[in-house]
Amino acid sequence: MSEHRPRIYLAGPEVFLPDPLAAGRRKCAMAAAHGFEGIYPLDASLDLAGLDVTAQAQTIAAANEGLMRNCDALIANLTPFRGVSMDSGTAFEVGFMRALGRPVLGYSNVVADYAARAQMFRARGIPTGDGDRADVEIENFARAENLMIACAVEFSGGSVVRTRVDAGIELDDLAGFEACLAQVKAMLGGGA
Amino acid sequence: MSEHRPRIYLAGPEVFLPDPLAAGRRKCAMAAAHGFEGIYPLDASLDLAGLDVTAQAQTIAAANEGLMRNCDALIANLTPFRGVSMDSGTAFEVGFMRALGRPVLGYSNVVADYAARAQMFRARGIPTGDGDRADVEIENFARAENLMIACAVEFSGGSVVRTRVDAGIELDDLAGFEACLAQVKAMLGGGA
Repeated sequence: MSEHRPRIYLAGPEVFLPDPLAAGRRKCAMAAAHGFEGIYPLDASLDLAGLDVTAQAQTIAAANEGLMRNCDALIANLTPFRGVSMDSGTAFEVGFMRALGRPVLGYSNVVADYAARAQMFRARGIPTGDGDRADVEIENFARAENLMIACAVEFSGGSVVRTRVDAGIELDDLAGFEACLAQVKAMLGGGA
Repeated sequence: MSEHRPRIYLAGPEVFLPDPLAAGRRKCAMAAAHGFEGIYPLDASLDLAGLDVTAQAQTIAAANEGLMRNCDALIANLTPFRGVSMDSGTAFEVGFMRALGRPVLGYSNVVADYAARAQMFRARGIPTGDGDRADVEIENFARAENLMIACAVEFSGGSVVRTRVDAGIELDDLAGFEACLAQVKAMLGGGA
């Protein structure tokens, strides 16, 4: 039976953690406990030896696109990453799976709304080389992220899970991920 | 003939400018000069009266998804927006159109690589409520953005256009957009 478990693409910046394989194993084990196969987009299995950076990046991107096409749903870590918003590669992946009509779920380990975070960003002073300005609108729909992201989750039948965690473990805490697994289970049904 | 011009979805945070309609008209006029129909995702034509914020956001998101499905290609403004990376809604849209197999092009009005920008972000001090940490890897593939975004443009047959512009007009300068139109024209062919 196990080869027919629904496959969940595990999107998020955890691939940049010091031990990204361990982070992936944790998520895959939790997915398995819910009857799913977790698909973690780490390039460890790719042979990048001898490739220049252009070819390396393209090999990884093509592999990740292929993995997504073979998954039944996506759970994304939407935690703010190097700015007001989530990791941009993760946002790309949410859109990718949404266009394919697969359920997309998401969690953030920061609870403030997008609008509140954008105001905090400005309060620190807008850095050089950023498109934000004092006269640029801050979207305020009481969502955790830009409406395209948040609504894609809602259209999937889910809701973005927000969890308050201690500083420094925003990429590590998996309570929100666990809640997303439960949401997917209600949509797809579990495995064995 | 004009009803058969290829339709280009115009993605970017210009929708948050003080006069977003004017920004859209400028881009649509430039697209038309290249033989394209520009599709600008502004919710001005939507009737949001009487809707609560939940329904407003969902109405806008559903409309934008519908517009994308009816476009032949996408040009995205990848300029950093409220952080190291581009606007997250725009990243979602790049992924959405990429999954549909439509060409995606992009430009940034900040020339520094993603990696250099991430280092500058850390040098200012990582703010509270951000997933970045000193021990988290900074991807460095000499690209303007996360590899999923940059490679989607490359897979489309294009390359991210980077333009150095004066501070404060990062969302206004359209030289990079013009270059993307030329790239799309080489892919799709122009209109009349």
